[in-house]
Amino acid sequence: MHTVPLAATTRGYPSSGYTVENIHAGAVAVVDREGRLLAWAGDPRYQTFTRSALKPFQALPFLLDDGPAEFGLAQEELALLCASHSGEDKHLAGVRSILAKIGMDAGRLECGCGAPLYYEANNLPLPQDQAWTPLHHNCSGKHSGFLAWCRQHGVPTAGYVEFDHPLQRAVRGALADAVQLPESSLPGGIDGCSAPNYALPLASLAHLYARLAQGTTDARLGHALGPLFEAMTHRPDMVSGTERSDLVFMTAGGGDWVAKIGADAVQAIGIRSAGIGIAIKVADGNNRGLHTITYHVLDQLGLLDEGRRAALERFRQPQIRNARGTVAGDIRSMLTLQRA
Amino acid sequence: MHTVPLAATTRGYPSSGYTVENIHAGAVAVVDREGRLLAWAGDPRYQTFTRSALKPFQALPFLLDDGPAEFGLAQEELALLCASHSGEDKHLAGVRSILAKIGMDAGRLECGCGAPLYYEANNLPLPQDQAWTPLHHNCSGKHSGFLAWCRQHGVPTAGYVEFDHPLQRAVRGALADAVQLPESSLPGGIDGCSAPNYALPLASLAHLYARLAQGTTDARLGHALGPLFEAMTHRPDMVSGTERSDLVFMTAGGGDWVAKIGADAVQAIGIRSAGIGIAIKVADGNNRGLHTITYHVLDQLGLLDEGRRAALERFRQPQIRNARGTVAGDIRSMLTLQRA
Repeated sequence: MHTVPLAATTRGYPSSGYTVENIHAGAVAVVDREGRLLAWAGDPRYQTFTRSALKPFQALPFLLDDGPAEFGLAQEELALLCASHSGEDKHLAGVRSILAKIGMDAGRLECGCGAPLYYEANNLPLPQDQAWTPLHHNCSGKHSGFLAWCRQHGVPTAGYVEFDHPLQRAVRGALADAVQLPESSLPGGIDGCSAPNYALPLASLAHLYARLAQGTTDARLGHALGPLFEAMTHRPDMVSGTERSDLVFMTAGGGDWVAKIGADAVQAIGIRSAGIGIAIKVADGNNRGLHTITYHVLDQLGLLDEGRRAALERFRQPQIRNARGTVAGDIRSMLTLQRA
Repeated sequence: MHTVPLAATTRGYPSSGYTVENIHAGAVAVVDREGRLLAWAGDPRYQTFTRSALKPFQALPFLLDDGPAEFGLAQEELALLCASHSGEDKHLAGVRSILAKIGMDAGRLECGCGAPLYYEANNLPLPQDQAWTPLHHNCSGKHSGFLAWCRQHGVPTAGYVEFDHPLQRAVRGALADAVQLPESSLPGGIDGCSAPNYALPLASLAHLYARLAQGTTDARLGHALGPLFEAMTHRPDMVSGTERSDLVFMTAGGGDWVAKIGADAVQAIGIRSAGIGIAIKVADGNNRGLHTITYHVLDQLGLLDEGRRAALERFRQPQIRNARGTVAGDIRSMLTLQRA
């Protein structure tokens, strides 16, 4: 479980220079579609909970059973199944639409209530006079997909987030199959939205995203993952939200990159053209340096042309400002990818 | 700059156990009044910006020149000079009182505006209809002390936060003297409140707190530090705020412990009875595990009796709950102090 410094924050004066203040250590794995390790930093088998980076694979049972066709889900609704959405109007409308198509109401969602991520992402104060509901929770799209699978299989929805509910058994089985690891090797934990989450070696998470981006020789799995890749890359605004990092990365990728962040500083990316998957974990769980690290992973892999560099410039070496708006330091990459 | 894991967060199910999700690495130094290293974790000379742990020493020039007597400052006002206060009514009243005694108004404060820490510390929403002023900034007590020194010395206050203002030169000189390091060895940086801050080896920060707690053979310095220790330990409610960690630690210490947190996961503590100083830095700057680490440093140093254990129980191994209030994991110590 070896980590290396991936990013640092500095503090100083323009005249006298900057001193490192905080160090964010972690690990990175880059693999091809067959799971072969291409590049890494720290231990590429560093084990991390996958958190929201798991969402496309939590939708797998529903996709494998052709749920989207059965209920007539639109592409933007498929994108919502994989989303950590911002609770913007279009996100809420999309979740309501999924629920209407499966004939269920929001009262069945077991994700808990959550304030929309929109406000923090746009530096806006959170309205105090609002009562937030499960619909506003960033995972409500995933949970509406969970309900859809239950509807499809005639399974009672109560307790669908429990570890041993038939839905979660199906998720666990599909995940183990997709990642080619035994179910018993996947440590489980309760996620922020109460659903079971699983820990994986980073290289395995990267492998999942390589398969998401480029498919697999397993036709049934490829048939399920293909529409999710298309939905996420065509409607990144439904997977993420205004001013949020996955939207920025996927927009820069122009349909070639599928990016999904997870809580506690997890980032997974699949690159269709290069046939690779990338997984990053900052060991301390702080997102502060995550996007800067992601930028430099992409850069060191040769994936940034001038247009993408410009589109992602905000992440390269962002400044840190204090209470008066004075520049106090910056966030810097400390990453050097090792190559196979 | 070697760090070691100091704390971890876990995730799991009560039935199947918990898996480490995030690791907070860092370093700890424990020294005696002469600066001799007694115990440590990681590199005890790990360099860190001191942030708000520097506040008592930023007040040194004012104390060395007998400012408190000159302006008739009360003990609670002395405590405010060293405070990261919560912006509670008593804090605002205290800062206003200092300003009145030195004949200045809040318009001269250059700390920037900041919302009171009170709300977040008490899990309350931040009122949206309030205009926060520099008075509310957690550093306004320190800054009123800065203004007091300027008044005392007839120095213009405009730009008192600039690196080369006479006040900041005086602070730098007094700090270098107190920590027994050359000024030129102290990397500078702009703090959140725009004042210059300095980086120190952890053992040196610990040495400062040992001297703050127990005085020094340097009579002039001891004469200045003694009243600050008394003020901070008698009025920890003015140094910190309701439900905040320094108040909890100093209350448990019962007048024997002086504790000051700094932004980006710095903690300094001086123990009068034991004649020691403690400095802790979590390398990633995240406070999440800081209080748990502090608890276990105190415990491993043999400073926790049953009463203190009970008073600090909230920090020992706190649970982590998700959006529905379900226990998802906990924060655990990974600390083992090495001994000289």
